[in-house]
Parts: sequence; structure tokens; C-alpha cells
Amino acid sequence: FILRTLKGVKAADVSEVLEELDGEECRYILQLLDVEVGAQVIRDIDEDERGDFLELFSPEELSPFIDELDSDDAVDILQQLGVRAREQVISLLKEDEQAAYVMDLLRYGEDCAGGLMAKELIKVNLNWTVVRSIEEIRRQAEDVDKVYTLYVVDDYDKLLGRVSLKRIILASDQTLISEIYEKDILSVETFMDQEEVASIMQKYDLEVIPVVNVRGMLAGRITVDDIIDVITEKAEEDRQIMAGISEDVQEDDSVWVLSRARLPWLMIGMIGGVIAANFMGLFDGDISQIPALATFVPLITATGGNVGLQSSSLVLQSLANPSVIEDSLWKRLFKTLTVAILNGSVLAGFVFLFNWLSAGGDPQGMKIAVTVSTALFSVVMLASTMGTVTPIVMDRLKINPALASGPFITIVNDLLGLGVYFGVAHLVFY
Amino acid sequence: FILRTLKGVKAADVSEVLEELDGEECRYILQLLDVEVGAQVIRDIDEDERGDFLELFSPEELSPFIDELDSDDAVDILQQLGVRAREQVISLLKEDEQAAYVMDLLRYGEDCAGGLMAKELIKVNLNWTVVRSIEEIRRQAEDVDKVYTLYVVDDYDKLLGRVSLKRIILASDQTLISEIYEKDILSVETFMDQEEVASIMQKYDLEVIPVVNVRGMLAGRITVDDIIDVITEKAEEDRQIMAGISEDVQEDDSVWVLSRARLPWLMIGMIGGVIAANFMGLFDGDISQIPALATFVPLITATGGNVGLQSSSLVLQSLANPSVIEDSLWKRLFKTLTVAILNGSVLAGFVFLFNWLSAGGDPQGMKIAVTVSTALFSVVMLASTMGTVTPIVMDRLKINPALASGPFITIVNDLLGLGVYFGVAHLVFY
Ligand SMILES: [Mg+2]
Ligand SMILES: [Mg+2]
Ligand SMILES: [Mg+2]
Ligand SMILES: [Mg+2]
Ligand SMILES: [Mg+2]
Ligand SMILES: [Mg+2]
Ligand SMILES: [Mg+2]
Ligand SMILES: [Mg+2]
Ligand SMILES: [Mg+2]
Ligand SMILES: [Mg+2]
Ligand SMILES: [Mg+2]
Ligand SMILES: [Mg+2]
Ligand SMILES: [Mg+2]
Repeated sequence: FILRTLKGVKAADVSEVLEELDGEECRYILQLLDVEVGAQVIRDIDEDERGDFLELFSPEELSPFIDELDSDDAVDILQQLGVRAREQVISLLKEDEQAAYVMDLLRYGEDCAGGLMAKELIKVNLNWTVVRSIEEIRRQAEDVDKVYTLYVVDDYDKLLGRVSLKRIILASDQTLISEIYEKDILSVETFMDQEEVASIMQKYDLEVIPVVNVRGMLAGRITVDDIIDVITEKAEEDRQIMAGISEDVQEDDSVWVLSRARLPWLMIGMIGGVIAANFMGLFDGDISQIPALATFVPLITATGGNVGLQSSSLVLQSLANPSVIEDSLWKRLFKTLTVAILNGSVLAGFVFLFNWLSAGGDPQGMKIAVTVSTALFSVVMLASTMGTVTPIVMDRLKINPALASGPFITIVNDLLGLGVYFGVAHLVFY
Repeated sequence: FILRTLKGVKAADVSEVLEELDGEECRYILQLLDVEVGAQVIRDIDEDERGDFLELFSPEELSPFIDELDSDDAVDILQQLGVRAREQVISLLKEDEQAAYVMDLLRYGEDCAGGLMAKELIKVNLNWTVVRSIEEIRRQAEDVDKVYTLYVVDDYDKLLGRVSLKRIILASDQTLISEIYEKDILSVETFMDQEEVASIMQKYDLEVIPVVNVRGMLAGRITVDDIIDVITEKAEEDRQIMAGISEDVQEDDSVWVLSRARLPWLMIGMIGGVIAANFMGLFDGDISQIPALATFVPLITATGGNVGLQSSSLVLQSLANPSVIEDSLWKRLFKTLTVAILNGSVLAGFVFLFNWLSAGGDPQGMKIAVTVSTALFSVVMLASTMGTVTPIVMDRLKINPALASGPFITIVNDLLGLGVYFGVAHLVFY
């Protein structure tokens, strides 16, 4: 019955269902499926769930599935196994080619081009004739699901260009590849960062891009489906960082994992809050004499936080889409500050008006109105500067600049804001 | 000279350069290029810049470029023109087919499958023989850059399946398509939301998906490069909403545009701050007697904001990746609250310890310690609930739930936090 139900269903859907079932049920269902479909099901299980899932199987049970997969997906799975199990699975692989592919790919870090590429591709030698090429293509194509394009290499495997299947079929038998191939080809190097690869493929609308090693030799190819996953992951990661969550978690992770991912930034915020409390403690006297002063603290800190967040996220966005002609730091800062003057004036004006009206001529109320508006304006200026400079500096230091759009910027701005506010208050009142 | 420089360069790069140049220079460079390359350059210019750019050209100058483009890109450009210019360009198109395509596509809203699809595709009739199909494919292929797959339709253009070119070539001349085609094909409907299309294509690793209208007739196809743009745009939009920016802006937009995009949420925050000030004003007496009470206000509001942001962004993430088996609202809330009890206890404990140590036996200090910790714990619980419920409710009301992760949640949490804090203080002290 299960088999009949599963028949028309895609592997990716089976994977989603398996994620919700427990161990024995998963094993049972996988045994019912073809090895090929089973392999796809394992590939499509969410990475976070797959670790536990794989532990259900012995190396003997896993290796037939690994034999079936494309080399890039095979390596992703092997990397989730312990070293010992991994070596066992590799030694049990039936296809020598797959074993060689996998061992080659295991060398690369996960987030570079080498970690994304698959070894399955079709290449022809510059000096082959069309007849020979067709024969070789037929042989190589057995292992390649989606052909996309044929790569042209020299005797040393150096990538020289590409040629379309159509062109080869139309050419006469004894034509050499060197006479008909196109030299115009974009490639990336194995060590290139995955996000850079993604932005190249997105910009030029590519479905596939060849990867070469430092010596220019064709090492593999990256397909667009894996690039989509890179883009989605990056967006999710940035959003979590902005929200002050310090691990890659989902709502359906365990309570402990969720709690652990959320505590670090809350604790740092807490420490910031305690520092703020101590700082405000210095103005105890002022506060008890003029309690109205304290009532504007939330307004000051919240505005600083909001402005800082806006600035940093705009910078983040342009860091993510670098253009050919980049503005200098000074030009950016100048622009941010112009916007800050504009918005700061509007906000300060609004609050001044409000305070002035509610003061109703009372001199203390007027002083508070002046204090709050002046501090607010300064806070807007300061938070804009911080929000602009921090992500740029982080980016130069190779820290993910999204951190600057998270709780970090709000904590810093809260403290700066309080400093400015009580500083101004002191000047106005004494 | 310019021509020579531009020769080896890709259209997408030329577009980036043109974005930085002024009107006359752009016109001049475009005239130097082939119509085909020029069309690509116009296509690849950033959407935000293209509006102004297009105004440099008369309908007569634009129409040859529009003739060259794929129908989906042609329509995107036409939609940026005024109605009059648009009609003129269409009437000037040399290719009747393109004109028909474009008029068909103009009907669809930008963010549904119909607005993403291109009309260029290759289809064969179920009842055609292989010979006839090959002939028709050759004719249709002239207009299609990337073939991907051949769609099989019946006499009423109803989509029935697909067939690979390889299969057609291998079959004998008089075989009917109906004997060799595959029925197993995924398609989307013209009115489906673009983000839904994106998640289907991502899940099943598709490069292309056919689009059918409500009657099941093949209307077009969507390619993966346009889906990548949908995914990137969505991520950017969500990030801007989370950062409290209310328009689609870039750092290089004008000062006025930037200022206008940033003001609305700042103003709302300001109003929230004024309400907070008035609310705290009710406790004037308490504050002037016990100024230390005021010093913990930033800690309370900041924690409420951080917790709310974390909760809402976790919910947001699972709203974006709906799984087969969805947890109920109650189960989610229960889980959030368990995490909140855990984290709230840690934070409250930490602050209590700190306050207790710095109070050094002073009874007023002890009372403050109790107040702050109790309020903190309650605020964590409350902010978690708010952060979980708000995006779910917004999603049900078809409002973009990312709004719940922006300044909105911090403003609401600031106010709730203050309410809880002074409420608790009143209970403890009086
Ligand atoms: Mg994950
Ligand atoms: Mg990998
Ligand atoms: Mg293989
Ligand atoms: Mg693109
Ligand atoms: Mg792959
Ligand atoms: Mg993949
Ligand atoms: Mg835009
Ligand atoms: Mg469109
Ligand atoms: Mg056309
Ligand atoms: Mg995928
Ligand atoms: Mg397109
Ligand atoms: Mg496109
Ligand atoms: Mg805040």
C-alpha cells in the first residue's frame, strides 16, 4: 500500500514526510523504494535532519545510495558522517569513478566553489575529431543527468572554451574541435567564495558554470539549483543574525537548541542594560529632581536603535550588490549625514512642538523640550554614522557585516544615546 | 575606441557602466552597439534606473530593441513606459509574433506566474509524427534561446506532458508523439504567486517550468534565472521591512528618496516614544522618590525588543518554508513560552544576582532587585507571545508578516514592557 501511494510522488516530497517519521519507519520506507529514488530521498532530506537520519544506516546500507548520487550531493552526505563511517562507505562504493570523484571533492571547504561543484560533466579535447568526440560524449553522457554544454580542454585538461552539441552534429566527421569551438566562456576558480559564484551566475543568467583549479584545469561544474540554495541560505542566515539569533535554528528544533541560540545576544543586551543602569545611576540626583527627564529615555534609545538599523541595513544592501563604481567611505558618510540632518530635524521639530505645547510656558518644561530635541537630533546623527561605519569596517575585517544590523547596533546606540541625552541635560540645566 | 573596448564585454557589464553615465553618453554608446547587444544592455539595467533611462528614447528608437528581446523581458520594459509610449512601441514592432506575445503578457500582474513567464517555448502536438515534429521544432527553435524541453499539447493547446529531443531523434519517422511522450510533468497556473513558483522550482531543482491557464492550456514557461531574481528581491524586501525602511531604496538613491523612505517608521517610533513618556509621567512621583527605578528602563525595553524580534523572525522563517505537517498555533505558542520561561529565568536570575550584590543588604535595593527581575521575566514572556502571534495573524490577514519583525514589534514591546515594569514596581513598593 505504501509503495503504491509513493509511486507517483516525487523524491523531494517523500523526504519531507520522512523528516516527520521516526527511525524504524524511515528505514522501512527506504527499503521499499528503488535505490535510485531512495538516493534522491536521502539527498532531499533537510540538512539539519539528515545527520540523525544517516545514523540509522550502516555503511553497507548507505554505499549503494551514494553510488547513485551526483558527486556533489554524495560528498555533502559523506561530510555528515563520522570519519570512520565515511571511509567505510567510500571503500564499499561499486563505481571506481564515483569513489575517485568523491575523494577529490572531499578536499574542498563547504563554502567555496570547490565545495559546490560536481565532477559530472562532458568534456572534449581540442584535438579530437568530430567522430571521436561524439563517441566520447556518448560514453561520458551516461553519468551526466543534465548536459547543458560541452567543455573543450587541451591535453593537460586546461579549460579553453565550449562547444554546443548542435554544432558538433552539424560539422563534418573529420572536423577538429579546435576549428569549431567558442573561446568565450566564463569560469570560476575552486577557491572562490560561494556567494561570489552566486552573484556571477545571477548577473549573467547562467544555468551552469565550469570550475577550474589554480592551474586552469577543468575541475568540475556548478549548477544553478545549488546556487539557489546558496542564495536562500545566505538570506536566512542574515535574517537570523539581524534578529540576534546566534545559531542556525528552525522553529521546530528542540526547546534547548532554541534557547541556546537565543541566549547569547539576550545576555549581551542584558549586560548593555546593566551598564546603562549604572550610567544613569550617575544622574540619580538629576532624575529625582526632574523626573520628567527620565520619561524621555525610551524615546531616545528607541530612535537611536531605529536609525542605526536603517543605516546599517542600507549599507548591507550595497555591500551585497557591489557595483562597478563604488562610492568612497567619505561620500557615503556625507550622504548618510545629510539624510540624518533632514530626518533628525523633522523628528526633533516634532518632539519640540509636542513638548512645547504640553509645557504651556513652564520654564522647566521648556528646558526639557530643548534638551530632548537637541539630544534627539544628536542621537540621529550619531546613530547614522555608527550604522554606516560599523558594517563597512566589519566587511573590511572579513566579519559578516549583517552582525552590524543586529542587536549589536541597538545596544551600542542605546548606550551612546543615553550618554548624549544626559550630557545635553547637564548642559541645559546647570 | 569605445566600441573596441566594449567588444569583449558582456551586456550585463555594459549595463552597470551605463547606470553611472548621463543621458547623452548612454544614447551614444547604445547606438554603437548591435541591436541585439543593445537590447540585452537595456534588459540588464537595474529596474530602478531603467525608468529614467527609457525616457531618453523615442518609441521609434525603442521598438527595434523590444523586437529582439524575449517576450517576458520585453513586457517588463514596456510596463515601465507610459501607456501612450507603450502602445506606440507595440504598433511599431516588426515581428507580429512578438507583438502578439507582448500584448498577451501585458495582461498579467507583475508578481504572479503570468508576469514572470515568457511565450517563447517549443511545443509539439500529440498527434504529430516524428518527421512533422522535427520540422516544426526547427521552425519554432529560431525564436527560443534555450530549449530545455519540448512540451506536448493536444489540439486545444492543453498541456499533456513533455518529450526530450533525444527521444524524438531516436524514434522512427512515422512514430506518433503520443507513443513516446512522458506524462509526468509539473506545471503552475498563470495566477500562482511568484514566491510559490519559486519555492516549487527550488524544491524540485527545475530549470524551467511550464505555465498553464485556468483551462489547462499551455500559456508560457518560466526560467530559473528569473526565479533567482524573485528570491533575491523577496529577501531584500524583507530585510528592508525588518529595518523599518518603507520603500524599495538603495544607498545610491537621492537624499530625498532615502529620507522619505526612512521617516515613516521613525515618526511612528517617535509617537510610541511620546506615548511612553506620557505613560512614565504618571509615575513621576515614584521616579523622583526612587530614581534607581528609572535607570532600569533601557534594560527592560531593550530586552523586550530583542526577545520579540527573535520570536517573530523564527516564525517568519517557518512561514517562508511551510512543511507538510504544520504545527498548530497552540503548539507553537506553548513551545515559545517554554523557551521564554527558560531564557527569562536565566536573564532574571542574572539581573537579580547583580542587583542583589550591588544592593548590599539595603532594603530599597532589594525591592528594586525583585521588581526588575519580576518585570524582566514577565516582559520576556509577553514579548515572546507577541512576537509569535503577530506574524501569524498578519500572515492570515495577507499582510506581509515581515512587518512584524520590524520597528512595529519593538515599539509595541517597549510600551508593553514599560507597562509591566511600572505595574510591578507599584505592587512591590506600595
Ligand atoms: Mg538549515
Ligand atoms: Mg558540497
Ligand atoms: Mg555517478
Ligand atoms: Mg539575472
Ligand atoms: Mg548538484
Ligand atoms: Mg542540489
Ligand atoms: Mg530594486
Ligand atoms: Mg514580468
Ligand atoms: Mg522573439
Ligand atoms: Mg533545490
Ligand atoms: Mg526571462
Ligand atoms: Mg531575466
Ligand atoms: Mg530598542
